[in-house]
Amino acid sequence: MSAEQTKTRILDAAFREFAEHGLAGARVDRIAKNAECNKNLIYVYFQSKEALFATVLDTHMTSVFASFPFTADDLPTVARHVFDQARTDPGVFRLLAWATLENSAAARPPGRGQEYDRVLALVREQQESGAIRNDAPPELILMSVLTLATAWAPVFPFGEAANPDAGLSPNTVRDWIADMVGRIAGQNPAAGSP
Amino acid sequence: MSAEQTKTRILDAAFREFAEHGLAGARVDRIAKNAECNKNLIYVYFQSKEALFATVLDTHMTSVFASFPFTADDLPTVARHVFDQARTDPGVFRLLAWATLENSAAARPPGRGQEYDRVLALVREQQESGAIRNDAPPELILMSVLTLATAWAPVFPFGEAANPDAGLSPNTVRDWIADMVGRIAGQNPAAGSP
Repeated sequence: MSAEQTKTRILDAAFREFAEHGLAGARVDRIAKNAECNKNLIYVYFQSKEALFATVLDTHMTSVFASFPFTADDLPTVARHVFDQARTDPGVFRLLAWATLENSAAARPPGRGQEYDRVLALVREQQESGAIRNDAPPELILMSVLTLATAWAPVFPFGEAANPDAGLSPNTVRDWIADMVGRIAGQNPAAGSP
Repeated sequence: MSAEQTKTRILDAAFREFAEHGLAGARVDRIAKNAECNKNLIYVYFQSKEALFATVLDTHMTSVFASFPFTADDLPTVARHVFDQARTDPGVFRLLAWATLENSAAARPPGRGQEYDRVLALVREQQESGAIRNDAPPELILMSVLTLATAWAPVFPFGEAANPDAGLSPNTVRDWIADMVGRIAGQNPAAGSP
């Protein structure tokens, strides 16, 4: 097995371990066992458990942000996209939630920060062009999009976790979230039901 | 010291320990040390670490829900209230975030469930009376209020944690969140800046 293959196996195993247990709860022993490699190799390649966590989170968050369909100038569509990502790849949002809760420096690694700032700049541009309301701080517009789009995901406390018997289909929830985001962004202020 | 006083000290120390470290990361030894009591007493009074966590979360969440100013029929005011609570008592929202992330049965203890269902019924009543839009599922209206109201809190990833340099005052953030909630609830669809 090449060094690159071994690194990939370690990153995959680390992603699963950190998503399940967070930074403090993760065990490098288990990562090594699941990656079928020697534990020492993990330290050789990634220095420390903390640095490995930061690398895993940064890689996954960067690809989430990079996949935003932001050219559409359409925040409800962005919300639909993030909603689907939170369903198909819950692990990355679990990583992010752990990092925030554990006050880890990994919560805002350079890559995530750059991608976040890039998306924030796009929101600002849309405000300046008049595509969305320009009277609210862009940070709060983006916060509302990301927060609402992920609110139903099991990793956060006020969606499905609080309403296990609501019986709402993913399509229904996605449509309503897109409607809410549209109202907040001022993109469909007169819209009725989705 | 009476048994009741000891129990109160244990609950206070447990609240701080669980808010900081979560369920898996909490140490009963530290709780006993900080409560200045014998570790065995914790098991005598509260059975297990899991049961103690559930008791602490249930007690604090019940008082959060019980304090909602719901008689006002005014969701932006509820959002302002929850926003202030998340600032003055971040620990209870940290507990809730841990419980959700750790998939703990404690995440929806009976007391929290009852209070949540009570508040949800109030949202439904407001929809039936025409005070707020009646075309959206009440679970999603309540989700949006609670999610947005707490979104700027450091415990969640898309607010202040993602925007450490935004320079927005708490009053500004609170006003905008109340505005967003009003738009979602259909209470101030034509409102401009707050």
